[in-house]
Amino acid sequence: MKNYLFLVVFICYVSVLEAQEKPHSHASSRKIEFPDIDGFKTLVSDFHQHTVFSDGNVWPSIRVQEALRDGLDVISMTEHLEYLPHKNDIPHKDRNRAHDIALKEAENHDLIVVRGSEITRSMPPGHSNAIFIDDANKLLIDNPMSVFKEAKNQGAFVFWNHPNWIAQVEDGVAKLTKMHKKLLKNDLLHGIEVVNDKTYSDEALQIALDNDLTIIGASDIHGLIDWAFEIPKGGHRPVTLVFAKEKTESSVKEALFEKRTVVYFNDLLIGRKEYLIPLINASLNVIEAKYIEKSTVLSVTIKNDSDVDYLLKNLSKFTFHNHSDIVTLKSHESTTINIKTIEKLSTLDISFKVLNGILAPKINPDISFKINIDGF
Amino acid sequence: MKNYLFLVVFICYVSVLEAQEKPHSHASSRKIEFPDIDGFKTLVSDFHQHTVFSDGNVWPSIRVQEALRDGLDVISMTEHLEYLPHKNDIPHKDRNRAHDIALKEAENHDLIVVRGSEITRSMPPGHSNAIFIDDANKLLIDNPMSVFKEAKNQGAFVFWNHPNWIAQVEDGVAKLTKMHKKLLKNDLLHGIEVVNDKTYSDEALQIALDNDLTIIGASDIHGLIDWAFEIPKGGHRPVTLVFAKEKTESSVKEALFEKRTVVYFNDLLIGRKEYLIPLINASLNVIEAKYIEKSTVLSVTIKNDSDVDYLLKNLSKFTFHNHSDIVTLKSHESTTINIKTIEKLSTLDISFKVLNGILAPKINPDISFKINIDGF
Amino acid sequence: MKNYLFLVVFICYVSVLEAQEKPHSHASSRKIEFPDIDGFKTLVSDFHQHTVFSDGNVWPSIRVQEALRDGLDVISMTEHLEYLPHKNDIPHKDRNRAHDIALKEAENHDLIVVRGSEITRSMPPGHSNAIFIDDANKLLIDNPMSVFKEAKNQGAFVFWNHPNWIAQVEDGVAKLTKMHKKLLKNDLLHGIEVVNDKTYSDEALQIALDNDLTIIGASDIHGLIDWAFEIPKGGHRPVTLVFAKEKTESSVKEALFEKRTVVYFNDLLIGRKEYLIPLINASLNVIEAKYIEKSTVLSVTIKNDSDVDYLLKNLSKFTFHNHSDIVTLKSHESTTINIKTIEKLSTLDISFKVLNGILAPKINPDISFKINIDGF
Amino acid sequence: MKNYLFLVVFICYVSVLEAQEKPHSHASSRKIEFPDIDGFKTLVSDFHQHTVFSDGNVWPSIRVQEALRDGLDVISMTEHLEYLPHKNDIPHKDRNRAHDIALKEAENHDLIVVRGSEITRSMPPGHSNAIFIDDANKLLIDNPMSVFKEAKNQGAFVFWNHPNWIAQVEDGVAKLTKMHKKLLKNDLLHGIEVVNDKTYSDEALQIALDNDLTIIGASDIHGLIDWAFEIPKGGHRPVTLVFAKEKTESSVKEALFEKRTVVYFNDLLIGRKEYLIPLINASLNVIEAKYIEKSTVLSVTIKNDSDVDYLLKNLSKFTFHNHSDIVTLKSHESTTINIKTIEKLSTLDISFKVLNGILAPKINPDISFKINIDGF
Repeated sequence: MKNYLFLVVFICYVSVLEAQEKPHSHASSRKIEFPDIDGFKTLVSDFHQHTVFSDGNVWPSIRVQEALRDGLDVISMTEHLEYLPHKNDIPHKDRNRAHDIALKEAENHDLIVVRGSEITRSMPPGHSNAIFIDDANKLLIDNPMSVFKEAKNQGAFVFWNHPNWIAQVEDGVAKLTKMHKKLLKNDLLHGIEVVNDKTYSDEALQIALDNDLTIIGASDIHGLIDWAFEIPKGGHRPVTLVFAKEKTESSVKEALFEKRTVVYFNDLLIGRKEYLIPLINASLNVIEAKYIEKSTVLSVTIKNDSDVDYLLKNLSKFTFHNHSDIVTLKSHESTTINIKTIEKLSTLDISFKVLNGILAPKINPDISFKINIDGF
Repeated sequence: MKNYLFLVVFICYVSVLEAQEKPHSHASSRKIEFPDIDGFKTLVSDFHQHTVFSDGNVWPSIRVQEALRDGLDVISMTEHLEYLPHKNDIPHKDRNRAHDIALKEAENHDLIVVRGSEITRSMPPGHSNAIFIDDANKLLIDNPMSVFKEAKNQGAFVFWNHPNWIAQVEDGVAKLTKMHKKLLKNDLLHGIEVVNDKTYSDEALQIALDNDLTIIGASDIHGLIDWAFEIPKGGHRPVTLVFAKEKTESSVKEALFEKRTVVYFNDLLIGRKEYLIPLINASLNVIEAKYIEKSTVLSVTIKNDSDVDYLLKNLSKFTFHNHSDIVTLKSHESTTINIKTIEKLSTLDISFKVLNGILAPKINPDISFKINIDGF
Repeated sequence: MKNYLFLVVFICYVSVLEAQEKPHSHASSRKIEFPDIDGFKTLVSDFHQHTVFSDGNVWPSIRVQEALRDGLDVISMTEHLEYLPHKNDIPHKDRNRAHDIALKEAENHDLIVVRGSEITRSMPPGHSNAIFIDDANKLLIDNPMSVFKEAKNQGAFVFWNHPNWIAQVEDGVAKLTKMHKKLLKNDLLHGIEVVNDKTYSDEALQIALDNDLTIIGASDIHGLIDWAFEIPKGGHRPVTLVFAKEKTESSVKEALFEKRTVVYFNDLLIGRKEYLIPLINASLNVIEAKYIEKSTVLSVTIKNDSDVDYLLKNLSKFTFHNHSDIVTLKSHESTTINIKTIEKLSTLDISFKVLNGILAPKINPDISFKINIDGF
Repeated sequence: MKNYLFLVVFICYVSVLEAQEKPHSHASSRKIEFPDIDGFKTLVSDFHQHTVFSDGNVWPSIRVQEALRDGLDVISMTEHLEYLPHKNDIPHKDRNRAHDIALKEAENHDLIVVRGSEITRSMPPGHSNAIFIDDANKLLIDNPMSVFKEAKNQGAFVFWNHPNWIAQVEDGVAKLTKMHKKLLKNDLLHGIEVVNDKTYSDEALQIALDNDLTIIGASDIHGLIDWAFEIPKGGHRPVTLVFAKEKTESSVKEALFEKRTVVYFNDLLIGRKEYLIPLINASLNVIEAKYIEKSTVLSVTIKNDSDVDYLLKNLSKFTFHNHSDIVTLKSHESTTINIKTIEKLSTLDISFKVLNGILAPKINPDISFKINIDGF
């Protein structure tokens, strides 16, 4: 007798995890929310922002207020060292001013502000951000290599900005130059923006992977976050999720040097396997798994506790009763997948490809759920 | 000299199709809208509905009003012939009553109502709908094969309902029985529900393809459409898009017999290549293609004139400047894809896999755009 | 020295009531919510509804499901005794059927279903609903006065439906006829619809007040509540709020005979002073009253725990710092009124006319808040 | 025979104005829209704004972009002359800088930017804005009277800012000082803010009326308009509607001196009778008036072509069939009022008090519609 004719009459209610639904604290909030992963806090960062102190259009206090509204944990003001279009109006001698004003604004808030600066050169090496510096003024050095060395002296974490910027590479294709290779060889460059503003670069991601660089995404905001990223329509700025042991400046710095990041851009999550898969797993929890009465169709409910809609492709041999092989698990909602298991099972391993997760160009992560079904 | 170093300074503004944006007539409407395809009108149908005249909960007039609100072109009341739970209250002798009432309600509206009935048997053969019948009363025949023959005598189009129904097949897997094969052999069965209510069946689709059956999706509504399919939240009932030469009853019938259908269910479109690919092509129009100034990045704007969000996977060798290789073209919106063509091109052929289109289990359609770029 | 120059430097934070904001359980819900008043539960009722068993378009089960979605506490199916357009299809002998089906559907829900019927005559006396009857069949009597007597024998509460119905009074003006006076004299008529469907009648209200009748509002629904009252756009059906000692059928009946009602229609509340003013007072709570630092401007925050927006007109001698003399207290929100008290006060009595409350034609209720300000 | 028994059987369809509904260009837009009035264009202005050049938090370009998003016609940057908290960073010598930057940003847009400055003194005389000045630098004069004289020399329009500001008048009550009387006597003060930021002052309005001053409302924005006035929730900044012969700087100036203004604040319109009543009349158009079939109930449909919801109180002897005596005409919507005219009329004059219009403290405007009913 075939397995799928096997008859089970009673219902098996299975609570794989506790099923009580928490209230949607998130509904309609602009705060960016992702769960912590095992051993690390998931901190939301934006390390590339401008104010009137270089070519931005707001006072640094607005940047802090935007960050608080967006639920960010750590930010940096990264004014251009070499490009000061407002200098006739703001002839600032002290290149730490934007940071100092932001730091004061952030007092009494749970927001880390780290000192940074944008080294602003034509290509090569293009633009780079040095963050966790001691003094921006000391970076005012002509020779590009010398600036990077000074940044290193200050203990800075340095990343290459928008290597895909069409004003500097007309084909938009990020590529390493001889100077970049020299910077890498001398440990003067630690990260690379795979996402900048509204752009994404497969080639930058490949450079990160090939050269062991930290994967970074940032807003590079000059105007208003609310307008640039259409916050009222549900948009969000690109951010780097940093997996830090604690919510402290030193812990964030350590995490960046150890490449513990995932970039969140539109509906995408981009990162290394070691962090992206745990992040997806922490986001998705099976909250109920039960057979539909008088059937061998298993109803599995998965809650998504993150801000991103996960786009899954079924890798199992089973087909679904209420979906094709593509299933979207919407942000902060629970989704039920009815799985035709043919016979009643006591456990189920089911795997999916996460189409909006990116490990490398054209490579998506696979995740799997191990579901122990009680009541069998 | 490498192609991607080739320098073009001037801007090329290219209007591939007329670029003027029509006002969003659709915004926030519940009316289901898809464009016509070459040679055929795209008619929206729901051929499986119940009223108080069998086991539904509304008078037939409500079904007509729901259809008008949903922008449907053609409907049928398909009461169970053999299951009449309200018969003590509604001891109807005339099994055409639901249809006749609906037909009267639809007077003065541009809505076709075709006479139908649900042949309601245990498996095999399970439930089937006969539509375009002359008289439902004449289908009150005990022997199942005889009912199907009478339906054929009346010129009916007959389709198998919810072959995946777990009350009749406990594993939810649609499969042909001996009786179905006999029906097929005698040309007594012409279509099959691949989508019924909130369910989808890969196996039913395979049966349709293997046996040359028309692909059908329907609501099988018993309560209220607004509640069952969460209309206020943007949901919609499953429908069959019928590609008919004209908006007439006979033309719809011809289309069904000739298998000119695509099913629209949640975010999915399911259908044969001959109709699904033209439907997608009619939905998507390139309204502008121009190189971004001083770059070899081609900005292509595509307007989606349909109700479905298209989920595309890039099949070209080029990468995108503002998307990963997955791009969503939202319903009734325009989306811009910036393509890194490395050198300036005068034409571009670009192909995508449509992940939410289904030709067969695990098989998605590919589409391509041929873009002629002026101004080069 | 003038009072308003009196100087108080310190801030007085005053918690008149506990200030902690409860989560907006109500947000975007269609459930109708009003607070209880002192001594009574506020029950939401709709005592005028039709189904397919007279000239409505749904099975009674839909009426129960609509009521549950709307958060109603008590309903009645009130089929026309004398008007049965579906009688060829539904030749029901038992006029209690709609009620019995609804009652069964409401099992296991916290919803009271009371037996009712609509006595459907030309004017006079027009249409009337008899609710809390024992047997609708016994009301099938030709002589109108005899029907009302039989209803009384059954202990029914009887109210006059839509006395403003233009199909029966072409000017839409409710007016007592000789027959109505006779019904009143014999205690055969106990209430009157001041609101029916989308109509309101000042004249019906005056009749209620002049003749000591219970004030009633009801939907008189024939189609779907969701469509008729545009639920997805935030609309609601008209209901009668009944102030009952307990949530029981007998307690509701007692409340109706004792005229303990307020009608909720669009943005209006219509009722007798004894119930409307306590209802408004229970809806509105001062949750904070403090002087703004270094000023004599008192900041008073009022929470509105009801479904209606209250439209208040300032009756005090003081003007406001952030409003004109018209203030709207939005449904389920907190509103702050900054009052220019000229000198620092330890208590404040402030009165408002409630423009969307109606005690009698052209007469609105006045309410007042007694605010004890601590910290002075 | 009583008039209200008069029988008219046929329907009278009456198009008082052309009935074709224009598409809701406004829906969900943040652009502030009011119709022109007879002889004047209705221009939307905000003459009180700050940037980083005094104590604001944005570069002047952001103020221009906000104005464009809000659909403003004319703005002014009004930096404090005497209060420069950012002066260590922005040690500007030229007090015209904010204006000059804004003017440049507004190039190629249909937005008038007028040169202004805020004279920032302790009370008396408090703060005042001088707009339409030639050179802000020349206003840097110690003696307050001398500043106002210099402003006059430059041809400026000068208005008193927030006379109700509790930091300067602790009771929030606007009152004229000896110095203000002197300014008035010497024609050095021409307007007064009745609305500033989120405050409204009945007393300031009375001062305007008693002293023949122009009524002004302005945002006094320092941070972001979107946040301060909750634009995504449908809020708007307070503005002065200026009734100008043309959309030119000189025409706006003339209009201000001639007191042709109405202030739009939250749901209020505040202004002189000569302009407020024409504005309301231009906003509201009767688009249909017909008797409901077989009745003497006149159905009047009024379209509101403005951004404000009008809150009307019925002053006529007739009652309404679908409203109490309070009717809200929602912004950019059509509202139908069914009027019980007792007998069929060929014309109807109907008057309303506009509760959210303010002519003077506690005085609302009355408006009336003259409806010519054809087909009688």
